[in-house]
Amino acid sequence: MMIQVQSGTSQEQLTWDSPIAREAYRHTCSHVLAQAVKRLYPEARLAIGPAIDTGFYYDFDVPESFTTEDLISLEEEMRGIIALDLPLQRFELPRDEAVLLMAQAGENYKVDLINDLPADTNLSFYRQGEYTDLCAGPHLMSTGRIGAFKLTHVAGAYWRGNEKNPMLQRIYGTAFDSEEELTAYLTALDEARKRDHRKLGRELDLFSIDEEVGPGLILWHPKLSTVREQIELYWRREHRRRGYEYVYTPHIGMSNLWETSGHLQTFADGMFPPMQMSVKDAGETSAYYIKPMNCPFHIQIYKSRQRSYRDLPLRWCELGGVYRYERSGTLHGMLRVRGFTQDDAHIICTEEQFEDEINRVLDFAFDLNRDFGFDQLKVYLSVRDLNNREDKYVGESHIWDRAEETLERLLIARGIAVIRDVGGAKFYGPAIDLKAVDAMGREWQGTTIQLDMNEPLRFGMTYTGSDGQEHTPIMLHRTLLGAMERFVGVLIEQYAGAFPTWLAPVQASILTITNRADNRAKEILAKLLDLEIRAETDLRNEKIGYKIREAQVSKVPYMLILGDREVAEGLVSVRGRLGDLGQMTVDDFISKITEEITTRALHS
Amino acid sequence: MMIQVQSGTSQEQLTWDSPIAREAYRHTCSHVLAQAVKRLYPEARLAIGPAIDTGFYYDFDVPESFTTEDLISLEEEMRGIIALDLPLQRFELPRDEAVLLMAQAGENYKVDLINDLPADTNLSFYRQGEYTDLCAGPHLMSTGRIGAFKLTHVAGAYWRGNEKNPMLQRIYGTAFDSEEELTAYLTALDEARKRDHRKLGRELDLFSIDEEVGPGLILWHPKLSTVREQIELYWRREHRRRGYEYVYTPHIGMSNLWETSGHLQTFADGMFPPMQMSVKDAGETSAYYIKPMNCPFHIQIYKSRQRSYRDLPLRWCELGGVYRYERSGTLHGMLRVRGFTQDDAHIICTEEQFEDEINRVLDFAFDLNRDFGFDQLKVYLSVRDLNNREDKYVGESHIWDRAEETLERLLIARGIAVIRDVGGAKFYGPAIDLKAVDAMGREWQGTTIQLDMNEPLRFGMTYTGSDGQEHTPIMLHRTLLGAMERFVGVLIEQYAGAFPTWLAPVQASILTITNRADNRAKEILAKLLDLEIRAETDLRNEKIGYKIREAQVSKVPYMLILGDREVAEGLVSVRGRLGDLGQMTVDDFISKITEEITTRALHS
Repeated sequence: MMIQVQSGTSQEQLTWDSPIAREAYRHTCSHVLAQAVKRLYPEARLAIGPAIDTGFYYDFDVPESFTTEDLISLEEEMRGIIALDLPLQRFELPRDEAVLLMAQAGENYKVDLINDLPADTNLSFYRQGEYTDLCAGPHLMSTGRIGAFKLTHVAGAYWRGNEKNPMLQRIYGTAFDSEEELTAYLTALDEARKRDHRKLGRELDLFSIDEEVGPGLILWHPKLSTVREQIELYWRREHRRRGYEYVYTPHIGMSNLWETSGHLQTFADGMFPPMQMSVKDAGETSAYYIKPMNCPFHIQIYKSRQRSYRDLPLRWCELGGVYRYERSGTLHGMLRVRGFTQDDAHIICTEEQFEDEINRVLDFAFDLNRDFGFDQLKVYLSVRDLNNREDKYVGESHIWDRAEETLERLLIARGIAVIRDVGGAKFYGPAIDLKAVDAMGREWQGTTIQLDMNEPLRFGMTYTGSDGQEHTPIMLHRTLLGAMERFVGVLIEQYAGAFPTWLAPVQASILTITNRADNRAKEILAKLLDLEIRAETDLRNEKIGYKIREAQVSKVPYMLILGDREVAEGLVSVRGRLGDLGQMTVDDFISKITEEITTRALHS
Repeated sequence: MMIQVQSGTSQEQLTWDSPIAREAYRHTCSHVLAQAVKRLYPEARLAIGPAIDTGFYYDFDVPESFTTEDLISLEEEMRGIIALDLPLQRFELPRDEAVLLMAQAGENYKVDLINDLPADTNLSFYRQGEYTDLCAGPHLMSTGRIGAFKLTHVAGAYWRGNEKNPMLQRIYGTAFDSEEELTAYLTALDEARKRDHRKLGRELDLFSIDEEVGPGLILWHPKLSTVREQIELYWRREHRRRGYEYVYTPHIGMSNLWETSGHLQTFADGMFPPMQMSVKDAGETSAYYIKPMNCPFHIQIYKSRQRSYRDLPLRWCELGGVYRYERSGTLHGMLRVRGFTQDDAHIICTEEQFEDEINRVLDFAFDLNRDFGFDQLKVYLSVRDLNNREDKYVGESHIWDRAEETLERLLIARGIAVIRDVGGAKFYGPAIDLKAVDAMGREWQGTTIQLDMNEPLRFGMTYTGSDGQEHTPIMLHRTLLGAMERFVGVLIEQYAGAFPTWLAPVQASILTITNRADNRAKEILAKLLDLEIRAETDLRNEKIGYKIREAQVSKVPYMLILGDREVAEGLVSVRGRLGDLGQMTVDDFISKITEEITTRALHS
């Protein structure tokens, strides 16, 4: 069904597939919500109410929080406004008149917003019935066009996102062009909530964040540490196989290192405060910073000896623990943290080698993502934003131009559909970013490959070429998983806590029906542990049904059930995640699970 | 031969095996050195000159450094003093007279030393010929008793070890009762110098310490990182096999965590300065510290859920990167650092379990040390020093008494010869420390097992007992290797850089005699790499003798040499570290090296 959209003074017919149509549709719905709030709570003050990826929200200054019942009443009121099919009428005002209009209505947040705009702008408003809102559009033609909508939840939100400002009430909602689409979305949302890694993290005893330790710092509990260890083993083996060498570097470095690297000039906001050595010794003027990145350390290893063109390319990888300062309001479970482990590598090579090296990293990244079930990757080319913040980039413009062009050419040559991310470049160079699309269709930043023609110059890195002259190498910064914390957080949601067997904290649980089977259970346990299969027994005096349910809740891939009959026949009854697999010998089970582990099968 | 020693006003006959005899012998030799210095450099001012484990030293304030030639002249002068067989005569003076005597002699450092002593002490002096020194003894009866001695080297040393005081010249020497023993010692010293891990670290490209990064912070280069990775793999596998689970925790924690743990009260000197969050946000009063220990993090994981007696014992291990502030003057290569990786574990258990757990840790420690070639371990019991610094210990005295008694009883029950280290306890409990004796007879602190009945109380750790009541568990802190940095530093010296095959950065080097063998070399390389044998080729157009010498210098355990004959016969000529092993098939070589790797053989 076509959607008529008004944008400024023009109109167009669009389909639901169009991002503009969806934005107009949901943005109009947010106005309907605000109109309903003003009808039921005339004292409410309006802040902002945009369309977002998943629907819309509106922030209100109200004396009390909205309850679930309030949302139901508001939905009822919104249905009434939609039924009235009020036209949305656009008009413009010069700034002083706009301020007057909003001030008279008591909308002090809107006055704030207007005052932030340049003095000579004309401001646009949209009016529907008695409700008028400062708004740039686009919008639907009238409220009656809205088909299906739902208010989903309420959350606190600071005005302008700053915790020093008043706390507002943010009502989230979503809207679709049909009830079917809305229902499908709400079902997916419900699924996502069940998969929430913070919820599963508590239920499965995977990790915690502790207020005494600090926000954004992850304590990996034993079960999730096992998952991580398996990922690390796989990661290390694959790196060695592909010609990388490991390094280990410290977590702190002196301020002059970070000055040379440019971090203190361009990345200081993202760094933790310095450790001032004058605290230890009045005569000491140095300061240490906990590292936000590993690169300067790898560079110092490079510089520790003379290098020749024969040594290149060098591929040095590290699982490096880095720390970045993020406002506490932006932190989110394992997905947005202050301390994380970068699966980092630096490739130091010649100009002739770097394209081949980038292609090798891309191959590696696609293979690795596939092994975790991420078959779909979106490829972004992160370049400078030349209009803004050019001072945020170190190095010369012509080097940047060349680097950006080279990356784009290389991706095109691979036949990859490239999305340009203007302003997404790091301060030292452009990047290729791969975003993995998860089971719920969300995109996660994982792999990044950054071309750096600047740091090698700043640090004075050189190698002796075949011509006997000193040359400056090129450096690639790259991570594949991104941050171990975020990657594993995404994995918890991707797998809904049911890790593939090769990653599962416990791979097989041996459950006894009677304590006459206990000795046999212990025998089997010893055999499995000896083969480094992660197994455990449940020998408690509980009903087998209860033991099975507990094992299911803990999402163990395999249960080996032992009663009198199994012991007598020398067999085990095997239950997988999808149900009963029948009886088999222990050796057959071992063959089956070993095959699954060594091939890193995603499904049992 | 017996040695007559005077100590205070008494004398005794001792053998060279007696530590007192060796101390008196070498201390007298240091007086002879000082007497010789005063004869040749009358303007020299004397500081201190004790006997040490390996000999003796004396610190002098002189306008110019001593040269190697100066040491030869001083030895000549010392031989003269010994030939005179001057008796050492002890006398005492009250403090004011002692000050007067030293002040008249211009010995201002000695005056300083006397002024630091309590006012009412009588002070003892020893006189030999024209030379008189403030000294507590013990000494030989006369200078003629000294048999063999040698001045070994000169180093700068600050007065009282403080870099703000004047730099003195420290002459080191050693003395033995026979020329044979002295020669043996000097040979060993020379060997130790060749094995110095800092020297080998440079030569073999193993690690570096960079002044831009900071003193005491180790950059692990690729080769040594491979060694470390193999140790970590072994360490993790052994821990899992013995019922440990891994955890991962952050490197920083908020100040209140360190207040609860007691670190800020009792360990602040050893911690890096705080990261003050007010730097990021004026309203923030919190501070973060980089962790000097892992325990508070493991405790917070424990506290993240209800625990039952059924869950205990919990054995949580982590390769945790910790940072401790040490004065830069005390740092030494990888052996004394500011940042290190503790192979840490915390065992949380009941009172009934902890003795068994300590025995399990001791078994583990002995096995692990043996696997690296440390068959000889000295066992120390570190207890409080009740005379000094009792305020340095947290927790109640009766808990301490019990903990110390229990550890001692347990070691005696194992038939272990225990050395008591009074004052060696950590602030939270007593400890068992194992010191590994290396190839040069030096002792290295590695394994420590600390019994902690205090932290669990401070942190309010509890578990529900079988009686349904809440109880406080006991916590054991333990490391086996101690610090990865120090352990690997010691290993470099222990193995003189020639790591056993299972640890060697490169396990096999394939050397071609002619480039007609290049393809065969590449085939063999691929086969070895496929089996995860760390191999490389040397296909350069160099003479085979040159290639072999380079491989020897890099201490590769095996060389596979390929010429026309080997290619024709489908064999390789194998050279081990001890020489030629003859020709064999590649499969036979693979069997041989695989056996050596999987058994972690110390010698090929």
